[in-house]
Amino acid sequence: MAEITNNTFADTLVLLLEGKKYSAARDVLETMHPADIAAMLEECESEKVPLLFRLIPKEIAAETFVEMDEDQQQLLIQGFSDSELKEVVDELYTDDAADIVGEMPANVVRRILKQADPEKRKMINEILKYPEDSAGSIMTTEYVSLRPDMTVEDAIKRIRRTGIDKETINTCYVIDENRKLQGIVTIRSLLLSEENVLMSEIMVEEVISALTKEDREAVAHDFTKYDLSVMPVVDEENRLVGIVTFDDVMDVLQEETTEDIEKMAAITPLEKPYLKTAVSKMFLSRIPWLLILMFSAAFTGLIITHFENALASHIALVASIPMLMATGGNCGSQASVTVIRGLSLGEIEFRDILRVIWKEIRVAVLCGVTMAAVNYLKLMAFDGVGMYVAAVISLTLLVTVIVAKVVGCSLPMVASKIGFDPAVMASPFITTIIDAVSLGIYVKIAMTILQ
Amino acid sequence: MAEITNNTFADTLVLLLEGKKYSAARDVLETMHPADIAAMLEECESEKVPLLFRLIPKEIAAETFVEMDEDQQQLLIQGFSDSELKEVVDELYTDDAADIVGEMPANVVRRILKQADPEKRKMINEILKYPEDSAGSIMTTEYVSLRPDMTVEDAIKRIRRTGIDKETINTCYVIDENRKLQGIVTIRSLLLSEENVLMSEIMVEEVISALTKEDREAVAHDFTKYDLSVMPVVDEENRLVGIVTFDDVMDVLQEETTEDIEKMAAITPLEKPYLKTAVSKMFLSRIPWLLILMFSAAFTGLIITHFENALASHIALVASIPMLMATGGNCGSQASVTVIRGLSLGEIEFRDILRVIWKEIRVAVLCGVTMAAVNYLKLMAFDGVGMYVAAVISLTLLVTVIVAKVVGCSLPMVASKIGFDPAVMASPFITTIIDAVSLGIYVKIAMTILQ
Repeated sequence: MAEITNNTFADTLVLLLEGKKYSAARDVLETMHPADIAAMLEECESEKVPLLFRLIPKEIAAETFVEMDEDQQQLLIQGFSDSELKEVVDELYTDDAADIVGEMPANVVRRILKQADPEKRKMINEILKYPEDSAGSIMTTEYVSLRPDMTVEDAIKRIRRTGIDKETINTCYVIDENRKLQGIVTIRSLLLSEENVLMSEIMVEEVISALTKEDREAVAHDFTKYDLSVMPVVDEENRLVGIVTFDDVMDVLQEETTEDIEKMAAITPLEKPYLKTAVSKMFLSRIPWLLILMFSAAFTGLIITHFENALASHIALVASIPMLMATGGNCGSQASVTVIRGLSLGEIEFRDILRVIWKEIRVAVLCGVTMAAVNYLKLMAFDGVGMYVAAVISLTLLVTVIVAKVVGCSLPMVASKIGFDPAVMASPFITTIIDAVSLGIYVKIAMTILQ
Repeated sequence: MAEITNNTFADTLVLLLEGKKYSAARDVLETMHPADIAAMLEECESEKVPLLFRLIPKEIAAETFVEMDEDQQQLLIQGFSDSELKEVVDELYTDDAADIVGEMPANVVRRILKQADPEKRKMINEILKYPEDSAGSIMTTEYVSLRPDMTVEDAIKRIRRTGIDKETINTCYVIDENRKLQGIVTIRSLLLSEENVLMSEIMVEEVISALTKEDREAVAHDFTKYDLSVMPVVDEENRLVGIVTFDDVMDVLQEETTEDIEKMAAITPLEKPYLKTAVSKMFLSRIPWLLILMFSAAFTGLIITHFENALASHIALVASIPMLMATGGNCGSQASVTVIRGLSLGEIEFRDILRVIWKEIRVAVLCGVTMAAVNYLKLMAFDGVGMYVAAVISLTLLVTVIVAKVVGCSLPMVASKIGFDPAVMASPFITTIIDAVSLGIYVKIAMTILQ
């Protein structure tokens, strides 16, 4: 399929609007996917958005609304009449509605909830009450529930009646009179069974489910582990309260990874995409870490000041500080980043710590010896540094690499064990620690070898 | 659902085996999910694995096999009789079979292909022929195809006949006599339509599809953008050749992210999980970057050597080098990592480069001024450094932060524009550049202010 260039579409549509060719604009919009329309609307000037939105075919207007960004959603809601708002809210799935409500200012929330019918309002409030990172917060309450004593014919009638058309809802849930989950029935098995077969006969009873309070990241891991497309969410008494679908899980996986990556780079995770984040927010998410790290780096400076004489005797010793620090930092972040990713993918657990350290030590010795040898030759051959000074630098390099790898791999694991986020233990912190340690070693080795 | 502790299961099963209680072991295995059995087998000693595997109920043996790691798969295949191997191969989906074949040594591959029936062998070879990162390489060829002139009744008969029971196959594909894709029909719509309705009447004609050659990462992005659970793969003439399902896409997303993260930490991406990777492989994936970065860092050392006298006149200047370098590195990686992630999520494109730089400059000025002020006060109040020297250090700090942020944000964007992988332009490279630039600036400022 050819790539749709949203730009051209936006330009075309604006031209159609300006020429008052509304029915042509509507026809164009009809051919587009909601996600593409939303992307296109983001390119438009904001005063054109409400008019364009009103031209979107009713069937996909709500879906398009969900895909739009928060600012544009708010702008639209403020411009909506009550009946327009009701039309959109009625079409929203409860999980999407809850997401939107969770991000709007209080006055907008009041308007939305007023337009929702009582049933939906109750469900939205239900979802909002779960903690932000729980399975409950990402579930939707639109699913088909069946009873064990229903026949295939009854079940088909019920599916027809509910009118849920979300594509992922290809699984129906069999619950007893207390809403306790008994099993699942796929639409496929309904289609292939005789009309008078009972749900209790064709349902699968082993169901992988999530608790409402369960961490959404754990739920996402179960999805990938068991290759699920949908998972029921139950309360502590195994009563069905909702379902989580794979599309929300893909979003969770991406968000959690972005957070990990941000933490590894010493940034407090941001909530919005880069271009939407205010400069002040970005400043606040970065400056605390920078200040902490600046002060920690000052300790390394103290070591230099303290051993001024030892270092100043050979300028080559001072000139090698950047190389030693950079190497320590790089080795440390190679080890820490690998381990952090392994932890978050579940490939490594705390009990593997000794195997991990042993592996890193062997890798470190190989890397360290190679680098020290290369560096020694370089210092002697090209920089005209004396044998002993070159030995000091190269020996420090070797020790730094080993310390860096060991600290880099073990700190994230210890962090995960004591309930800290391993990602925060990434490069910058580890680099700061390694800098100080390796400079200390440097001075020690220099004083020993050079008298 | 309670967490299953695989450990206990492995222990229990081994005890059952040793007590020759095979039917009890089989009963226990019957209650378990294939992914859990595979995880459990990994914990077992390798001589127990073949026996345990033979106890797994036939229906889930192939699925369990797919979830196992490569080494254990190979071990099992080598122990299988031809008929045992055929039993497993027959049950494999072609995409899984192709994955396994792609990773085995040649003699094992020959045995597998010999046991596969001719039809399956052809399909496996078909998939293997697509480039490693293409949509073709992750597709499966098990799907239900229908004709436009079939009725709902015909379609149901055909679905029953194919016997495909993969849960994600809830969508059927309507193709014409030349296998060209005409549209899709969901099982749900079959269930809710009268028996004599034609496929051409209920099929959806706007289908988002992928080309066989398309990059698998682009396919994964379309999945998340359009919330798809399955996507047809077509050749250049729009002929249907396979489908990609969301479970493979989730794996792709995770692998690609891991690769990005590894590149950001200056590691050549590894193919296997951490604990399975040989020390020598890890060494080779890390050492080239370490050597390159070591040599680049030596340039920074050259600057120090060159301006020995200017720097040596005030030890505070030398003592501040680690702090300046660390800050430059941290600021640079904050900017670069944020931008790289934004690029890979599609939140930022090259044409945004000026907006990004302008945003980073503003953030940098805020961060830089704060840090310079704090640092100036610290130097004067606690370190007893003279006013001018403190000014040199703080001014350099400000300039370093700005340079770091601008270099950090723009280099990955330029890299993506000229077809380089932006992730490689992450922290280590940028840090090295910034180190050299900021030391150069340091010396310039020092010589200007301090005469």
